Amino acid sequence: MQTEITIETSGQGLYEFTREAERFVTGAGVETGILTIFVRHTSCSMLIQENADPDVQRDLHEFFARIVPENMEWLRHTQEGPDDMPAHIKAAMTQVSLSIPVARSSMLLGTWQGIYLFEHRRAPHSRKVVLHISP
Amino acid sequence: MQTEITIETSGQGLYEFTREAERFVTGAGVETGILTIFVRHTSCSMLIQENADPDVQRDLHEFFARIVPENMEWLRHTQEGPDDMPAHIKAAMTQVSLSIPVARSSMLLGTWQGIYLFEHRRAPHSRKVVLHISP
Amino acid sequence: MQTEITIETSGQGLYEFTREAERFVTGAGVETGILTIFVRHTSCSMLIQENADPDVQRDLHEFFARIVPENMEWLRHTQEGPDDMPAHIKAAMTQVSLSIPVARSSMLLGTWQGIYLFEHRRAPHSRKVVLHISP
Repeated sequence: MQTEITIETSGQGLYEFTREAERFVTGAGVETGILTIFVRHTSCSMLIQENADPDVQRDLHEFFARIVPENMEWLRHTQEGPDDMPAHIKAAMTQVSLSIPVARSSMLLGTWQGIYLFEHRRAPHSRKVVLHISP
Repeated sequence: MQTEITIETSGQGLYEFTREAERFVTGAGVETGILTIFVRHTSCSMLIQENADPDVQRDLHEFFARIVPENMEWLRHTQEGPDDMPAHIKAAMTQVSLSIPVARSSMLLGTWQGIYLFEHRRAPHSRKVVLHISP
Repeated sequence: MQTEITIETSGQGLYEFTREAERFVTGAGVETGILTIFVRHTSCSMLIQENADPDVQRDLHEFFARIVPENMEWLRHTQEGPDDMPAHIKAAMTQVSLSIPVARSSMLLGTWQGIYLFEHRRAPHSRKVVLHISP
């Protein structure tokens, strides 16, 4: 009913884990319920977005890089590197948790919906994501 | 305990469906629980906002139109029209799912809270929204 | 399984209530489940962010103040004060609800994650937040 997965990231961008989530839901044996996805970090976030054209993911990444640039000279929290405070801001503008309905032991995602970890840091990170199914 | 509703949209803006959600909650016969609302699309989103003054909804729409304009020349994903990639970005900046507590078979919304589908595309669309009640 | 807490605010910024949430979870006696947090207002919001360096909270507040300034001359909803419509916009850009997994009767927060009410109004307010645990 609950598990934790690790997603290894190697720089900013979107990392899809729809298949890992689907595998957990199938294995949990819950017919109808809610899958909760929660990321245990404050400098990356969760996102459901189109998984057909990779350009969508690149454009999403670039939009957030442009609206939260690294060189905002008024930032105070800068000791962890120029990408750290922008990472917190981008995380605040997206999601820390997602709630996805399950029916017939499968997520009710739309045709083009993929589940992503949105990494906002430049350095590689091991990201912990909790998956939980409620009836 | 779970249903899917369709919301017909006719252009960008907010479409309230608080009453449809309340009707589902009343009919489900769950005294205390959580209503999960999930939209099965990536170019519209979910929003809880003030339902008293319609100007709030217009200003929200205009803010997002200004901060994610259609003419960003650096966008790559443009083959589905100038409003498509901005729609994905606006959806990423708002919500795909909402979790609303239920007590005495009624949603615990605040006095001014209404539930909206936020349509980000210009053309009419049929939008699928899943409603699910957990105890 | 469900309670409502009140958070008194005295101006814009982040108000942490991680300890109040943890106390509720401990008292509920649910081993494994989901804590849902829902704010019953449209001019403040919910946020999980770093609770180590207070500068992170100040920078978050300042970023949103800069990206949603009070003097946008095109706003229509202005009769409740210059900070009201920006408050609705900032609430729309962040969260109204959070879903946090619980294991061994404790929230599965990451090391640096704190739970905050993000107040977007200048005047003092009493904010109602519902906490609910599902199995």
